[in-house]
Amino acid sequence: MPIVHISLRAGKPEAYRQAIFDGLYSAMRETLSVPEDDQFMVISEHDAANFRYGDAYGVARSADVVYIQITVFNTRTVEQKKALFRRIAELLGQSPGIRPEDVFVIVLDAAKENWSVGHGLAQFA
Amino acid sequence: MPIVHISLRAGKPEAYRQAIFDGLYSAMRETLSVPEDDQFMVISEHDAANFRYGDAYGVARSADVVYIQITVFNTRTVEQKKALFRRIAELLGQSPGIRPEDVFVIVLDAAKENWSVGHGLAQFA
Amino acid sequence: MPIVHISLRAGKPEAYRQAIFDGLYSAMRETLSVPEDDQFMVISEHDAANFRYGDAYGVARSADVVYIQITVFNTRTVEQKKALFRRIAELLGQSPGIRPEDVFVIVLDAAKENWSVGHGLAQFA
Repeated sequence: MPIVHISLRAGKPEAYRQAIFDGLYSAMRETLSVPEDDQFMVISEHDAANFRYGDAYGVARSADVVYIQITVFNTRTVEQKKALFRRIAELLGQSPGIRPEDVFVIVLDAAKENWSVGHGLAQFA
Repeated sequence: MPIVHISLRAGKPEAYRQAIFDGLYSAMRETLSVPEDDQFMVISEHDAANFRYGDAYGVARSADVVYIQITVFNTRTVEQKKALFRRIAELLGQSPGIRPEDVFVIVLDAAKENWSVGHGLAQFA
Repeated sequence: MPIVHISLRAGKPEAYRQAIFDGLYSAMRETLSVPEDDQFMVISEHDAANFRYGDAYGVARSADVVYIQITVFNTRTVEQKKALFRRIAELLGQSPGIRPEDVFVIVLDAAKENWSVGHGLAQFA
């Protein structure tokens, strides 16, 4: 039940955006062991005037930068997060071909009691 | 001062989206005792290509799934969160008629010092 | 590496939105001492039907209210957050001229291990 919000510049083809979803899903399956079809993701496309990125931290980013916010259980380890970051950059590099400089990921932690994945229940509390 | 971000597929009538706002506001009034007119909510509509959902955790979701992110004070109890989830599913089921399988809620906790609801002040610190 | 998501009503000129980005960047430089070009920000514009605000907490908000979500390291102090709120309201008041009543900020805390600002690495873990 990670939930994922992706922000990028508008104008990429649909196949490009589907590849982002697919890569993130595969990376979460492999490194967080989420169950099959645990896919809860949205993309927001932004015009240039509504999207800003910089070169801080010595990373030469481009207008293709993708901001990926992933909310997960607060039980995930540092090692899992490191593996997740590495695998996302690898898979998005393979398809749709995003440069590693342009993969920006932020993880938010939420307690198990904070999730309701349907039916008004707190399934993991 | 919960702040709410809702993501759903584009194309629902305005009355449908207003009913979501109204139901969430009522649920927060009843279960979190927020003050009158404590309504800070936005909806993002997504085309099919920018919206992905799955059937994980044995819940038969549809394209009508609604992702609801609610950021609250980190002082809320497990019981309050459970009551909130239950009431949201009930009220959105009544109007606009969302199936309980399609109500997905994630709560984010933020310390009281993390909120500024106007005037550049940290009103709750 | 704060990452910032701004939500406002659609229809403001581009210069208005750029001034919001510029003001937030300056406020973060001054109060959080972020490095040069540490700018990772997006704006989502919402139609009236997808945007709701209220007058709770005695603040007379208008349709110009701006919701600003800033995710930062969880090492920031209360004093830094207070200074950040104050400076954001000051700078957005100067340009593009947003009333202090309409500046709503919520800070989310994320551990240093939760950030990957490029290359698939956890640069701050």
